[in-house]
Amino acid sequence: MKAPVDFYFDFSSPYGYLAAQKIEPLAARHGRSVTWRPMLLGAAFKVSGAGPLPSVPLKGEYSKRDFLRSARFHGVPFRIPDVFPVSTLHACRAFYATGNVPLAKSLFKAYFVDNLNIGEADNVMKIAASLGLKPDLNDQAVKDKTRAEVDAAVARGVFGSPYIVVDGEPFWGMDRFDQLERWLREPF
Amino acid sequence: MKAPVDFYFDFSSPYGYLAAQKIEPLAARHGRSVTWRPMLLGAAFKVSGAGPLPSVPLKGEYSKRDFLRSARFHGVPFRIPDVFPVSTLHACRAFYATGNVPLAKSLFKAYFVDNLNIGEADNVMKIAASLGLKPDLNDQAVKDKTRAEVDAAVARGVFGSPYIVVDGEPFWGMDRFDQLERWLREPF
Repeated sequence: MKAPVDFYFDFSSPYGYLAAQKIEPLAARHGRSVTWRPMLLGAAFKVSGAGPLPSVPLKGEYSKRDFLRSARFHGVPFRIPDVFPVSTLHACRAFYATGNVPLAKSLFKAYFVDNLNIGEADNVMKIAASLGLKPDLNDQAVKDKTRAEVDAAVARGVFGSPYIVVDGEPFWGMDRFDQLERWLREPF
Repeated sequence: MKAPVDFYFDFSSPYGYLAAQKIEPLAARHGRSVTWRPMLLGAAFKVSGAGPLPSVPLKGEYSKRDFLRSARFHGVPFRIPDVFPVSTLHACRAFYATGNVPLAKSLFKAYFVDNLNIGEADNVMKIAASLGLKPDLNDQAVKDKTRAEVDAAVARGVFGSPYIVVDGEPFWGMDRFDQLERWLREPF
């Protein structure tokens, strides 16, 4: 039995969203399942000193263009949300309260297709309710679990989104999916 | 007659080196030539606030691993030089003094294959001499030309290496060569 692929991402990350549309079939082609591991890029930025892409001079302008072009290239519906980026703490907690992968997919779609601000707890709860879920975002155990997962991600070296780990080998970015696919076939 | 592809890079950039092995055949497949435009990443970092990859916490460790794996993936001979990164001001001046593309390729190979410190003017001059070239690195016109080219790159938005512009459309990173190739076929 091969170990699952660890899929780290931030719900506010366009490249994380694009990767989320591709990671499962990619892993399945090589007999792997996917462990979804949302994290908070802000926690990684505190260590790496980086900041949200849109706020970086030169790179920010390029990035917006690249988000849109990359979505077209990969054939994935996408828009830059009106409120972007947002804190995804509530979204993260909702996920770790439930462990529900369809919820993760719905959160991504709500934000990057339907332009719903998933930074707001009310919207997160509405999306969860549409799947019959009712996570308690203020439960201390949920808060602790979320914090522990985010800390573990940063301790493992996750500094960007998406970030995939296969048997200890890290791949940053959807643009490493070509290398990831070859690695899943055979480490090189 | 289609316009040439503008190929921006820093001689100290591993991804720039990898891209340099692939850009000409890629462009040629679509009836394009390549204009080589070395620049100084340090000048872009002053604007973007970024720093050399190896010095960024978390990202730095990942990058070293990714340089090596990316070179294996693309089948390109590569090593991380003992002195890395270096200032490529002398290398840039040597290029703009001569406009010689084989010199650019030799500088990259000297650094990333033969482990020669191309940050040193003496080594740059040796590499130039091996091609029968004798650029005057202290000539004011060469200094001015180099400065103007670097400033123009940053003014155009170049913030990383490699950075390719096709008919006004920018592509950052060798990992956008898939999009670049499709764009050369037909903008999307």
